[in-house]
Amino acid sequence: MKKNIPIGIIGAGRIGKLHISNILQNIPDFSIEIVADIAIDSLKKWAELHRIKKITDNPQDVFDNPDVKAVLICSSTDTHAEFIEKAANAGKDIFCEKPIDPDVKVIKNVLDTVEENKVKLQIGFNRRFDHNFKRVRNLVASGEIGDPHIVKITSRDPAPPPIDYIKVSGGLFNDMTIHDWDMARYLGGSQTGEVTEVYAMGGVLVDEKIGSEGNDIDTCAVVLRYENGGMAMIDNSRQAVYGYDQRVEVFGSKGVAIAENDRPNNVKFYNEKDISMDKIPYFFLERYMQSYTDEIVSFYECLREDKQPVVDGKDGLMAVVVAKAAMKSLCENRPVKITEIQFGF
Amino acid sequence: MKKNIPIGIIGAGRIGKLHISNILQNIPDFSIEIVADIAIDSLKKWAELHRIKKITDNPQDVFDNPDVKAVLICSSTDTHAEFIEKAANAGKDIFCEKPIDPDVKVIKNVLDTVEENKVKLQIGFNRRFDHNFKRVRNLVASGEIGDPHIVKITSRDPAPPPIDYIKVSGGLFNDMTIHDWDMARYLGGSQTGEVTEVYAMGGVLVDEKIGSEGNDIDTCAVVLRYENGGMAMIDNSRQAVYGYDQRVEVFGSKGVAIAENDRPNNVKFYNEKDISMDKIPYFFLERYMQSYTDEIVSFYECLREDKQPVVDGKDGLMAVVVAKAAMKSLCENRPVKITEIQFGF
Amino acid sequence: MKKNIPIGIIGAGRIGKLHISNILQNIPDFSIEIVADIAIDSLKKWAELHRIKKITDNPQDVFDNPDVKAVLICSSTDTHAEFIEKAANAGKDIFCEKPIDPDVKVIKNVLDTVEENKVKLQIGFNRRFDHNFKRVRNLVASGEIGDPHIVKITSRDPAPPPIDYIKVSGGLFNDMTIHDWDMARYLGGSQTGEVTEVYAMGGVLVDEKIGSEGNDIDTCAVVLRYENGGMAMIDNSRQAVYGYDQRVEVFGSKGVAIAENDRPNNVKFYNEKDISMDKIPYFFLERYMQSYTDEIVSFYECLREDKQPVVDGKDGLMAVVVAKAAMKSLCENRPVKITEIQFGF
Amino acid sequence: MKKNIPIGIIGAGRIGKLHISNILQNIPDFSIEIVADIAIDSLKKWAELHRIKKITDNPQDVFDNPDVKAVLICSSTDTHAEFIEKAANAGKDIFCEKPIDPDVKVIKNVLDTVEENKVKLQIGFNRRFDHNFKRVRNLVASGEIGDPHIVKITSRDPAPPPIDYIKVSGGLFNDMTIHDWDMARYLGGSQTGEVTEVYAMGGVLVDEKIGSEGNDIDTCAVVLRYENGGMAMIDNSRQAVYGYDQRVEVFGSKGVAIAENDRPNNVKFYNEKDISMDKIPYFFLERYMQSYTDEIVSFYECLREDKQPVVDGKDGLMAVVVAKAAMKSLCENRPVKITEIQFGF
Repeated sequence: MKKNIPIGIIGAGRIGKLHISNILQNIPDFSIEIVADIAIDSLKKWAELHRIKKITDNPQDVFDNPDVKAVLICSSTDTHAEFIEKAANAGKDIFCEKPIDPDVKVIKNVLDTVEENKVKLQIGFNRRFDHNFKRVRNLVASGEIGDPHIVKITSRDPAPPPIDYIKVSGGLFNDMTIHDWDMARYLGGSQTGEVTEVYAMGGVLVDEKIGSEGNDIDTCAVVLRYENGGMAMIDNSRQAVYGYDQRVEVFGSKGVAIAENDRPNNVKFYNEKDISMDKIPYFFLERYMQSYTDEIVSFYECLREDKQPVVDGKDGLMAVVVAKAAMKSLCENRPVKITEIQFGF
Repeated sequence: MKKNIPIGIIGAGRIGKLHISNILQNIPDFSIEIVADIAIDSLKKWAELHRIKKITDNPQDVFDNPDVKAVLICSSTDTHAEFIEKAANAGKDIFCEKPIDPDVKVIKNVLDTVEENKVKLQIGFNRRFDHNFKRVRNLVASGEIGDPHIVKITSRDPAPPPIDYIKVSGGLFNDMTIHDWDMARYLGGSQTGEVTEVYAMGGVLVDEKIGSEGNDIDTCAVVLRYENGGMAMIDNSRQAVYGYDQRVEVFGSKGVAIAENDRPNNVKFYNEKDISMDKIPYFFLERYMQSYTDEIVSFYECLREDKQPVVDGKDGLMAVVVAKAAMKSLCENRPVKITEIQFGF
Repeated sequence: MKKNIPIGIIGAGRIGKLHISNILQNIPDFSIEIVADIAIDSLKKWAELHRIKKITDNPQDVFDNPDVKAVLICSSTDTHAEFIEKAANAGKDIFCEKPIDPDVKVIKNVLDTVEENKVKLQIGFNRRFDHNFKRVRNLVASGEIGDPHIVKITSRDPAPPPIDYIKVSGGLFNDMTIHDWDMARYLGGSQTGEVTEVYAMGGVLVDEKIGSEGNDIDTCAVVLRYENGGMAMIDNSRQAVYGYDQRVEVFGSKGVAIAENDRPNNVKFYNEKDISMDKIPYFFLERYMQSYTDEIVSFYECLREDKQPVVDGKDGLMAVVVAKAAMKSLCENRPVKITEIQFGF
Repeated sequence: MKKNIPIGIIGAGRIGKLHISNILQNIPDFSIEIVADIAIDSLKKWAELHRIKKITDNPQDVFDNPDVKAVLICSSTDTHAEFIEKAANAGKDIFCEKPIDPDVKVIKNVLDTVEENKVKLQIGFNRRFDHNFKRVRNLVASGEIGDPHIVKITSRDPAPPPIDYIKVSGGLFNDMTIHDWDMARYLGGSQTGEVTEVYAMGGVLVDEKIGSEGNDIDTCAVVLRYENGGMAMIDNSRQAVYGYDQRVEVFGSKGVAIAENDRPNNVKFYNEKDISMDKIPYFFLERYMQSYTDEIVSFYECLREDKQPVVDGKDGLMAVVVAKAAMKSLCENRPVKITEIQFGF
C-alpha cells in the first residue's frame, strides 16, 4: 500500500529545515528530490550532512523537475501566492505555510488556479495536529459535546518579537491570531458552521513601542459568532512571562472539553512554602514539535491515499478573511460581519 | 474586643433562613432579636426550633426596635430600596441582598440616604468571599500578578430556571451575570480601575422558550474594558449539564492566576476505559456555602471594628450600571460606554 | 421517621467539645441531656453559652440518667474500657473514641459485655467518613476496582508532638498508625478479608530525642498481607513540613483509585519562576472536620434506624491487634502473623 | 568541540534497532560502522534502508574492527558478560543493556576486566533519563528535599508476558523489579547511601499459571532500608489494566517530590456522568521513548568529554545484588541484609 513520493522544497529557513528534518526522520516515503533556497551557499554543508540530493537557488528548477510530484512552500509570505500558482500549473500537489497571502482577492485567484489544475493544497496550520486540540476537536466531531455553544481559545506568546519584526508582521491579527482564527473554525467544524461576525477589543499593554513605533496592538480580547448561533472567545497577548500559554475549551449542550497547557514533567514539589511545578514550555517549536511532524505525515497520507487535505485552501482563505474583519472591528470599534470582507471587494 | 451586636432580619425565605442558620452556628455575637416575614404562620415552628426570640409579619417592627443595631434585608428585590432607606433613617447598619434595585436613579437616591445617616451598607455579593476567587484577588492586590491585562470569568448554571421565573428575573444580565459584573470589578480592583465599556454577544441556544416566551437570552459572551486599558471576558450559560461551572482567571504582566472548579473529592479512578473523577457540585448553595457564612462574618467584623464593608453601596450600584450597559449593547449590537448609563438619566 | 434521641457525653476536652458543637449545629435530634467532665469548673461558662442543660463531674450521673439512651465517651484512653462496660451494663448505646484499650484481652472482655447487653458500640475512626477515602472504599465495595491487590496508605503529620506526649502515647503504631491499621481494613473490606501478617520497618529520622527520650520511632514503612493474598503498604512520618499528608490508593484487577490531598483552594499561579499552588492543610481538625460530623450523624442514624454501626467493636479490637503485631515485627525484625497476637494470650 | 565517534552494535533485535534508529536521527556524531546479529538474512533489507555500512553475523568482527571506538551490546542477556569482556579487552568503551548477568560473581569478574582495561561501561537503565524521575532526583540531589526519609516507587505493567517468557525471565525481581532496584538507588543517591536490607512480600494475584507453570509471582510489595536509615517502598504488578503505571515519590525533611503518570493529552471532558481524561500510555516504548534517546546521548557525551557514565558497572552489579536479596527474602519470608548477598559467595 505504501508508495514513494518524490518532493521538492522551496525555502530552507527555520521552518523549511524543520520540515526536511522531520521528513528524513519520520517519513522515508517522502523522498526529497530537490531543495531551493536563495541562500544556496550557506546551505551546502547542511545539505550534504542531511544527504539532500540536489540544491538550487532557482525555485523554477523545482517546478520544472518532472520527478517531483509535490512541493512544500516554506519561503517568505510574499512569495506564497506566486509559487502556489506555478506549482499548480506544473501539476504538482502543494503544502504551503500560512498565510497564502494578505490580500483576499489574491487568495481567491490562487485557489481558482489550484482548482483548475485539480491539485491538492494543504495549508500549514500545524496546531490542528496538536494532541490536545485534536482531542477536543474529536470530542466535538463525535457529538459527545453536543451542540457547541461557546469556544474559548487562549493563546499567549512568552515574549514579544522585535519592533522591526512587528512593523512588517501585518499586525497581531495576521501574525499571531491567525492561528486562532483557524483554531476557532477547526474546533467548531461543521457543528458550528462558519464564523459570521467578529468584535475585537485590543490595546497596547505590554510595550508602548508596539503601539507608537509598530503601529500595532499587543493584547486582544475577541468574540466571534458562528452560523449556528454559537460564540467563540479569543484572547492573545504578546507577553506571558510564565511561558507559551496555549489552551482551548469547547462548551456544548452535552458537556465541555478543556485542554490545558503541557508541562515539561509531571512532578509536584511540596515544601514549607507551597506546592510547585515546573514552568510550561517557553518556545513554540518545543510546544508544537509533534504537530509539525504530524501535519507533514498527514499531507503524505492524503497524497498516498488520494484524500482531501485536513487543512485546505478554503481554510487558508477564511483565516485571512476573519483577520481582516477583526482589524476592521478594532479600527471602527463595532462588530463586523464576515460578509463585509468576504464579498466586499 | 468581641462585642455582642443585636440584629433584625427581614425576609425568612431560602436565603434569609440560610443567613440565620449560619449566624446561629458560627457568629454567636450576632444575637438575632427579631425576624420579620409576611408568611409568619409557616414560620412559627421553624422559629421555635431555632430559638428565635421574636417573629413578626410587620417589617416596621424591626426598624422600630431600639435594641436592633443592624438589619439583614433578605426580602424580595422590589422591597430592597424601601427597606434600606427605612433602616438607614432608623440609624441601623444594613446588609442587603443584591440587587439594590433595577433602577439606577433609585439606587443613587438610596445611597444618598445611607450616606446622610452615616450607616454602613454591605451588599450580598457572596462570591467575593469564595476561597478560590479571594485567592486570585489577593494575588492581584499584592501585585504578584503585575498589571492585570485580561480577566476571564466563566459562570454557567447547571440548569435553567422555569420560564415563569425567567419572565420576572430582569433578564440574564441582571439575574445571572450580575455576579460576574461584580466579580470583574472585584478581581480587577484598584489595579484595573472601573469598567468603562462593554460589548455583549448573546443568544438562545439552550431552550428556545427562553427566547420566545421569556424574551431573554440563555448564553452570552461579553468583553469589558477597564480604565487601565485591560480587558475582561465573561461567558454565561443557563445550562451546563456537567454541573455548576465557576472559574476565573487573571492574567497580568507578571503572571496568571487560574481558579478551577471545586470537586467533591480528590479521587481519580483509572480503568480500562479512561481516567475519571466525580462531577463538580450541581447546586449553588453547595458550591458557595462557605462564602455565605464568610460574608456575614465579614459584616459582623466591619460593625464590631467600625470598618468599611468589603462590598459597599457603590459596588451594588455599579453592577447594575454595567448590566444596563450590557443590555443596551446586546440590543443595539455595538459596544456601549459605561458613561452612557452612569450619567445618562 | 425522625426521632429525638437523648444522649450523655463523658469528657469535654478538645474532641468532646468538637462532637458537642457538631451535634448542636447539625444533629438537632440528638438532644444533649448531660455532659460529664472532671474539670467541671472551667466548663460552666462554655456549657451555658452552648445551652447545655446539665453538667456534672461524676460520670456515673450519665449512666444513672434514665433519659439518656446513648453515651459518647470522649474521656482519656485509660477510662474507655471501664466506661464502655458501665454504659453497656446500663443498657445504653455507645460511641467511644479510639482506642478501646491498649490491652487486647481487656478489649475482648469489653466487647463481651457489649454483646451480652445487646447495645450498639461505634468506635471513633472518623477517617472512614472522609469524602476522599469513602469514595475509594465505595469503588472497591462496588466491585469497580475488581479484586484488590495492593492498598497504599500515606499518612504523615505536619510536626511531631512534644516528647512528653510521645512518652505516654503508646508509641507511633498505637498513636498515629492506629488510623491506618483501620484504614487498611476499611479500604480492603470484605474484598480482601482481614489482615493476616505484618512486617514493619521503622526508624528515628525526624528527631533523635523521639528515640533517645521517647523510646519510640518517628518514621515507618510497613507491609501487610490480607486473607485474599493482597497486600497493603503504609508509610508514616511524624513530620511532613509541607502539611498534613493524607493519601490512599487501592489497586485491583480492574483499575486503581487514587485519593490525593485536599487543597485549600483550586488556584494555580504561573509566574516567571514556576507554577505554584497553596499548601495543603496543616491541622488534622481542618482536614477531617467534615468526617467528625459525619461519623456522629452515622451514629445517630444507626440508632434511629436500628442498624449496625459502620465502625464496630471488632474494628476497634483489630486495629489494636494489628498495632501489636507491627510492634512485635519492629522489635524482632521479622514478619509477624496476626494470629500470634489475636489468639496469643 | 564535537567529535565523531565510530561505533559497533551487537544485537539488532527490538532494543538494538531502537538504539540504531535513535542514533541515526539524533546523534549524527555517533557513526555506526558495523552491526552484528545472528539473524543477518532478515537484517539486510532493514540495514540498507537505514544506510548501515556493514553488517555481520559474527560479533568478533565488531571487536576486531580497529575503527570502532565503542560498542553497544544489545544481544540476549546470556551473552552480555562475554561480550563486555571481549569489548573491554579490545579497548572499546561499552554500553550494555541490563542486566550484566544473573550471577553476582560473574558480574564482579566482568567489572574487574572493565577496570583493568580502563574502558567506560554504561548500563542501560534508561529510566534514570526519564523527564519525571530525573526531575525528582534533581530535587533530591540539590538538597531541596532535605534528608530523604521515604522513597516510593510504583511500577506496574499493563499486561503479563506469555508464560513461556516468564519461565526464562529470571523471575519478577530480575525481569521487572530490576528497574526499581536501580531506581531506588538512583533516587536516593548519595543522600541515602546504598540499600542495606530488603523485605519482599509477593503473591500470584493476576494469573495463577504464573505461579503454577511459571514458578514466579506477579505482584509484590517490598520495603528497603538505606544506609542513612531511610526506607524505600516498591510495588509491582504484572497487570494494570488501565495502562503502564510509573510513578515515584521522595519524601524528606524539607518536602516531598511526587512524579505522576504522563498522559497522552491534557484534555478534561466534563459531562453528565463524570469528568474524564484519556488513559495513560499502554506500552513501555511509548512511555520511555525519550529516555532511550537520552541515555545514548548521555553515553555519547561521556565518551566525547571523557566523563564517568551516569549509570556504571557498579549500578549494574547492585541492582542484581538487591534482586537476589529480595528473592531470598521472599523465599525465607524474612528481611535479608544486602551483605548476605554482596559478600556471600
